[in-house]
Amino acid sequence: MFMHNKKLMYTVPVAEPNPALATLMLEQFGGPQGELAAAMRYFTQGLADEDVGRRDLLMDIATEELSHLEIIGSIVAMLNRGGKGKLAEAAEEEADLYASMTSGGESHTMSILYGGGTALINSAGVPWTAAYIDSIGDPACDLRSNIAAESRAKIVYERLINVTDDAGIKDALTFLMTREVAHQKSFEKALYAIPANFPPGKLPGHPDFADKYYNMSQGEGDASGSWNEGEQWEVVDDREAQAAVDGGAGDASVKLSAADKKTVQAFAARTQSDPSANPITGADLGAGPGAGRTTPMEAPA
Amino acid sequence: MFMHNKKLMYTVPVAEPNPALATLMLEQFGGPQGELAAAMRYFTQGLADEDVGRRDLLMDIATEELSHLEIIGSIVAMLNRGGKGKLAEAAEEEADLYASMTSGGESHTMSILYGGGTALINSAGVPWTAAYIDSIGDPACDLRSNIAAESRAKIVYERLINVTDDAGIKDALTFLMTREVAHQKSFEKALYAIPANFPPGKLPGHPDFADKYYNMSQGEGDASGSWNEGEQWEVVDDREAQAAVDGGAGDASVKLSAADKKTVQAFAARTQSDPSANPITGADLGAGPGAGRTTPMEAPA
Amino acid sequence: MFMHNKKLMYTVPVAEPNPALATLMLEQFGGPQGELAAAMRYFTQGLADEDVGRRDLLMDIATEELSHLEIIGSIVAMLNRGGKGKLAEAAEEEADLYASMTSGGESHTMSILYGGGTALINSAGVPWTAAYIDSIGDPACDLRSNIAAESRAKIVYERLINVTDDAGIKDALTFLMTREVAHQKSFEKALYAIPANFPPGKLPGHPDFADKYYNMSQGEGDASGSWNEGEQWEVVDDREAQAAVDGGAGDASVKLSAADKKTVQAFAARTQSDPSANPITGADLGAGPGAGRTTPMEAPA
Amino acid sequence: MFMHNKKLMYTVPVAEPNPALATLMLEQFGGPQGELAAAMRYFTQGLADEDVGRRDLLMDIATEELSHLEIIGSIVAMLNRGGKGKLAEAAEEEADLYASMTSGGESHTMSILYGGGTALINSAGVPWTAAYIDSIGDPACDLRSNIAAESRAKIVYERLINVTDDAGIKDALTFLMTREVAHQKSFEKALYAIPANFPPGKLPGHPDFADKYYNMSQGEGDASGSWNEGEQWEVVDDREAQAAVDGGAGDASVKLSAADKKTVQAFAARTQSDPSANPITGADLGAGPGAGRTTPMEAPA
Amino acid sequence: MFMHNKKLMYTVPVAEPNPALATLMLEQFGGPQGELAAAMRYFTQGLADEDVGRRDLLMDIATEELSHLEIIGSIVAMLNRGGKGKLAEAAEEEADLYASMTSGGESHTMSILYGGGTALINSAGVPWTAAYIDSIGDPACDLRSNIAAESRAKIVYERLINVTDDAGIKDALTFLMTREVAHQKSFEKALYAIPANFPPGKLPGHPDFADKYYNMSQGEGDASGSWNEGEQWEVVDDREAQAAVDGGAGDASVKLSAADKKTVQAFAARTQSDPSANPITGADLGAGPGAGRTTPMEAPA
Amino acid sequence: MFMHNKKLMYTVPVAEPNPALATLMLEQFGGPQGELAAAMRYFTQGLADEDVGRRDLLMDIATEELSHLEIIGSIVAMLNRGGKGKLAEAAEEEADLYASMTSGGESHTMSILYGGGTALINSAGVPWTAAYIDSIGDPACDLRSNIAAESRAKIVYERLINVTDDAGIKDALTFLMTREVAHQKSFEKALYAIPANFPPGKLPGHPDFADKYYNMSQGEGDASGSWNEGEQWEVVDDREAQAAVDGGAGDASVKLSAADKKTVQAFAARTQSDPSANPITGADLGAGPGAGRTTPMEAPA
Repeated sequence: MFMHNKKLMYTVPVAEPNPALATLMLEQFGGPQGELAAAMRYFTQGLADEDVGRRDLLMDIATEELSHLEIIGSIVAMLNRGGKGKLAEAAEEEADLYASMTSGGESHTMSILYGGGTALINSAGVPWTAAYIDSIGDPACDLRSNIAAESRAKIVYERLINVTDDAGIKDALTFLMTREVAHQKSFEKALYAIPANFPPGKLPGHPDFADKYYNMSQGEGDASGSWNEGEQWEVVDDREAQAAVDGGAGDASVKLSAADKKTVQAFAARTQSDPSANPITGADLGAGPGAGRTTPMEAPA
Repeated sequence: MFMHNKKLMYTVPVAEPNPALATLMLEQFGGPQGELAAAMRYFTQGLADEDVGRRDLLMDIATEELSHLEIIGSIVAMLNRGGKGKLAEAAEEEADLYASMTSGGESHTMSILYGGGTALINSAGVPWTAAYIDSIGDPACDLRSNIAAESRAKIVYERLINVTDDAGIKDALTFLMTREVAHQKSFEKALYAIPANFPPGKLPGHPDFADKYYNMSQGEGDASGSWNEGEQWEVVDDREAQAAVDGGAGDASVKLSAADKKTVQAFAARTQSDPSANPITGADLGAGPGAGRTTPMEAPA
Repeated sequence: MFMHNKKLMYTVPVAEPNPALATLMLEQFGGPQGELAAAMRYFTQGLADEDVGRRDLLMDIATEELSHLEIIGSIVAMLNRGGKGKLAEAAEEEADLYASMTSGGESHTMSILYGGGTALINSAGVPWTAAYIDSIGDPACDLRSNIAAESRAKIVYERLINVTDDAGIKDALTFLMTREVAHQKSFEKALYAIPANFPPGKLPGHPDFADKYYNMSQGEGDASGSWNEGEQWEVVDDREAQAAVDGGAGDASVKLSAADKKTVQAFAARTQSDPSANPITGADLGAGPGAGRTTPMEAPA
Repeated sequence: MFMHNKKLMYTVPVAEPNPALATLMLEQFGGPQGELAAAMRYFTQGLADEDVGRRDLLMDIATEELSHLEIIGSIVAMLNRGGKGKLAEAAEEEADLYASMTSGGESHTMSILYGGGTALINSAGVPWTAAYIDSIGDPACDLRSNIAAESRAKIVYERLINVTDDAGIKDALTFLMTREVAHQKSFEKALYAIPANFPPGKLPGHPDFADKYYNMSQGEGDASGSWNEGEQWEVVDDREAQAAVDGGAGDASVKLSAADKKTVQAFAARTQSDPSANPITGADLGAGPGAGRTTPMEAPA
Repeated sequence: MFMHNKKLMYTVPVAEPNPALATLMLEQFGGPQGELAAAMRYFTQGLADEDVGRRDLLMDIATEELSHLEIIGSIVAMLNRGGKGKLAEAAEEEADLYASMTSGGESHTMSILYGGGTALINSAGVPWTAAYIDSIGDPACDLRSNIAAESRAKIVYERLINVTDDAGIKDALTFLMTREVAHQKSFEKALYAIPANFPPGKLPGHPDFADKYYNMSQGEGDASGSWNEGEQWEVVDDREAQAAVDGGAGDASVKLSAADKKTVQAFAARTQSDPSANPITGADLGAGPGAGRTTPMEAPA
Repeated sequence: MFMHNKKLMYTVPVAEPNPALATLMLEQFGGPQGELAAAMRYFTQGLADEDVGRRDLLMDIATEELSHLEIIGSIVAMLNRGGKGKLAEAAEEEADLYASMTSGGESHTMSILYGGGTALINSAGVPWTAAYIDSIGDPACDLRSNIAAESRAKIVYERLINVTDDAGIKDALTFLMTREVAHQKSFEKALYAIPANFPPGKLPGHPDFADKYYNMSQGEGDASGSWNEGEQWEVVDDREAQAAVDGGAGDASVKLSAADKKTVQAFAARTQSDPSANPITGADLGAGPGAGRTTPMEAPA
């Protein structure tokens, strides 16, 4: 069960309204790397995890991320607080209101559609979607996804800090950024507390293909490093050896019943292209009187 | 520049058509953990990476993933090859066609909308979206995202292997699964080849908050582990100490100009709720003649 | 700030696993009328509301909805708990696993993609989107939206109750359904506590059009009721009187500068259709040798 | 059956082209509160409603909303009419074209992607989605949704009016805004013409929970009003009394078969976290040579 | 302005309810090839077209498609009419209701979420999106898009006819299918009535590249036809000749200011990978006690 | 199988960074008419096509489009190369960084969210979706879709060329634009190489409706052309003759079982509107003390 304390987890003193800056902050509110994505990622994992320790960890951090969502949302609300009233009350001339809401970022949408409210959109106005959440119900994978997600959120906060000179906002963003680092550390611990977490799952890989490195991109810029050289890797450069690596024909086939075969053939015959014809086409018809045919013209059949 | 060899990277011999199974396979074609997501994830990172080694690695694996996309797509095409012709040619009675395309999974959509073609949808029929890609342009983050993505893809292949008894499909899926393991190993190497990759970015965290663990979820089930105990962590259990951790008031504020303040007040006044009234509401009106008011009725003002 | 108590707000004893039923329950977890939509709707409104009473109300109910989200998510997790392990451990033959995960609803996607986890999708597998949230930052509108949303959630719970004979689930769903009714009552009170809430906003309507009822759909089935008859309405049946109701020409126009006019004319001329021609078309070319032209054939120009 | 009269329902005289303003107007064309959403909301409801009066009402207003869609679309078309030709004909220097299409709002997308056409997007360029429509097939709910939707549309028009000083546009927008008020009145009548519309549906709420108000958000700012005080409400402030309100254990459980239990245990064991270990993690490895370990280093097992 | 006649454009007599069949029909209601997509495609084009003839054509067909939308929607409504009441009234045992709504297709979502209403979703439950509409504001392109769209709609209707043995539905679908053919003919005429419609636009192609055919996919299955052979094409088979076809270096470059260069170098240096190291990785740590290192273990630096 | 050559297909020398211009270029990278859409369109068609010639053609062009995707992506990467480093390294004052990333287009989102990387979004920041792909598994339709798609891509490139004065970019865009023209020619050839491609599919249209032209939009602006006049068309102007064109009642009906009928009636009765009542409504309650009732007030029952 969730409870709410009216105090924010971190105090938010904003120096002055700035609707365009508000739209940048939305990235961490309704954006893919933002706090709702974080909270829901951990909360939904926590609901189904069988391990009591991870379950506790996931719910702790999920709850903290909801508290972060409230902080960043409060920053957005404060940055919009001036413009919100002006538009609702028509407190300025039309041209002035128009100018202020087209001053940058996605402030026009935040004003017209959301009235200066804190919408769950990113900085481009795209509504938040659960497609951002990549949990798949396997702890060794989900913890890796969480580690990656925390690292990304850290960087987006760093970028926001870099473009803001409002000391109060900078301070709150620094808190939020720091917490992502701390969360990453916790998720790292939880991952490696699973003694055998790599490769994830039960099925072993096929030994013929587990240590191959296929050099698929060749030319100037081909490079080496521990990711593709050394005794642990067998590099395959030969283009032909990269195809049909199972030693088969490299084709796709399916055994069809006689009835299916007949039907597929009928379909194929009906829609067959005639490679011997050089038909007049729509492009020929459309090339225009002065343009010349795109193909030598024949009488239509 | 990309080139194409008509041989598949792995041979695909399918035993018999099965449209419902085909829809499961779509997860790795047009699903969030599938091969298009993988290929585009690495390709788009590779285009902008400043490091020659990583750039090569990303393009190698991106290209291989495109080749995997072709393999899994070919499996789907083979599994659908029987049904495709039957529907196009109306080779069976209506009731039989109807029955076969509602036999499970999302086969009804694959048949009616896509005609048995290989659509970029997942097993629920949801079109692929670039919202699945979480690259943010920082190598230390993107490599972590890639590591996590490879681990997830490994598991989804494992699940597909577990539900298929077609030996040819199982074989091809095992190849694909194995390669995800190999790719994860490469991305791990590339991550740790960046000497200082944690925390990502340049800005350090704030020391007051980097080692705190806020125990936000409390009750039976509270647990400990290296993620929240030991000398590296300072655990905060006290509910009050979890609020306004900066020592401030825990509120949000913004300095408004006099004009803004006046406008906000006008907006607030106009939309103010009167807590002293106990108004008749729409729910009262709608509770119906025999239902009793939901509030004691007063004469409308 | 949010806090979490490990106890659920309501106990969830599920009689037995049922993955197909789990997918129906997802409607109230990750569906448009579900608990995440409710929680986020009120939370985001609460962040920006200027009225202390509404702000408190919105945060109270937002927090409760998060607690509901946890209840319905726990139902889903329990219904999936059997299948989850079987697939991960490959505890059954392929055919049995395949059969169980294609037994109805969207259980195939929940198994293959989410591993039996509680994903933020609806019963059709569509990821949750903030496009479901219709808040616009005006209290008189947002409260009406909330009232409507609570009424919808009530009905979806009623439908789920009607299709479930698991007593424990039925009981928990009844709690959730009842709370939606209570919330609707609160939002109704809050709406009517704004003394002048209709029409919302500041601008009055234009008196010429505020009481008109345009009978746009005519024929057998035309009906009357208080919504379109009586002294409060002026009904306009005459088709001509429904067009250009301002008394103008009923056209759209814009004053273009001379330069713009010239450019638009150039564009129009270049893409002008020649109504006097009867061109051979692609359809003619494609109608096939035995099919006869769709238009009388002329020599191509 | 629908018919079309080439006259607009309201005359649209636009003073001069303005592509940036056009993008704001798109909110009511292809935005969530816009006319397509309105038309489709009522039309789809009308198709399935069993009540002859509501059916007529829904079709009347759906048809009128389509006519409004045409008006707002015509405004957009006129505002774009200058820029459209210039880009297609390359009538200006590149730098001038570039400047004019990046002058604000989403005009760059309207120009490059849609060529100045009237696209079904909102002011941020997000394509219209039926996820905006919240109809659920219950009249008492759908009418409430319609009432809320009309109130929202009214406000968005008011905002557009406030930022436009083009008299012709302002006039047309005022007509459209006024009609939303009239429509709301009709839908209100239709709702309350259902004698017992609250609560919607057949199932009664559970008496233990219908009048409770859970004070989930506590602290400075706790407030009272008719929505949570008075004889109609029983307020629950005690945090413990808010959990497990059924008097149960507040946990989630499911009865598993012996086989399921065994499988779940196997899965749990395989992915168990070892809380006693303090593992070296990826963060440790990545903290860099000069950074100091994030945990005291031990020899890897 | 639109008007509505309560008569359908075509009579719809449905033999009996069938919720699973209803979900298939949704493809032409709220699916990508369906009638809403058609109507909106032509309507939005019509609003901005400068040519009086095309504008008339587009509005004629847009209006007819809206009338088709009503027909297919009415079919859906009739097919759902039985189930709708049963669920709302709880007229059957839970198990029976559950069974009937999980009988195939997406009927579970139509029942639980939409109550048997006619939702703007496709047969997989995916909400309609304006991303389906590909109009770009150039008549020579948009007419081609319309031609293609009509041909697709024809085929989807054909598929639906092939799976339905309800004579009334079959009859109505045949009408709808036929009209798509007629519309395609009209759009073909309109395209070729633009004398020079190929290539669209004003800019000519570059002569060096207009007649080249790059044989990018090579191997068994390489084929020829009028699309890549004959005097009109110059085929490029040589892999090297396919790269950097401008004769340049085939690389991408940008001139950076000195300051930019310095910053890019700083960023590159900070995130540089060290190809000489063979680091221990997270995969090594996670390979488990019994698994053996994936790389030979060294002491962490 | 795909392979990659590190050389681009066309050299990309960019004169100087310009993040706002970069966002325009994204239309052809991650936009609906862009290269990913093209590549995936042809690739997915090619996987399932039964015709060896078309299959080869589709794979040739799919592979070339991937190579184009790399070119346009490289342009984007170069245009962003300056800004990327500045933000990551915090190389400028906050205000300067803020100014540069809100200088136009969607550069704010590209910077904050994607760090100057090449994201698969369009110029408005909307993530690429497979909903852009309209393939349906019928060659006569899919080729038409491809023809239309190539024509659209040509125009979007033309627009981009028109707004860019960077010679290197202009040159590369001209190459890309030209190739779309060449591809259209190939697809035209392939379409007309199917001898009978119109109408697509097997089912003939109904002769009563194949040549009718319903004049649905009437008034000033009614026009004629070969699309609706001449011996090939029978024009229906009469409004009544446009309804129920089958000669039936123009209604929708379904035969319900007795049980269904009873249930539908129960549902209808429970939610019936009472047309004789003139109820007080929520709008009346909300009209405010000084506003006057919207309906004459009666005492609530």
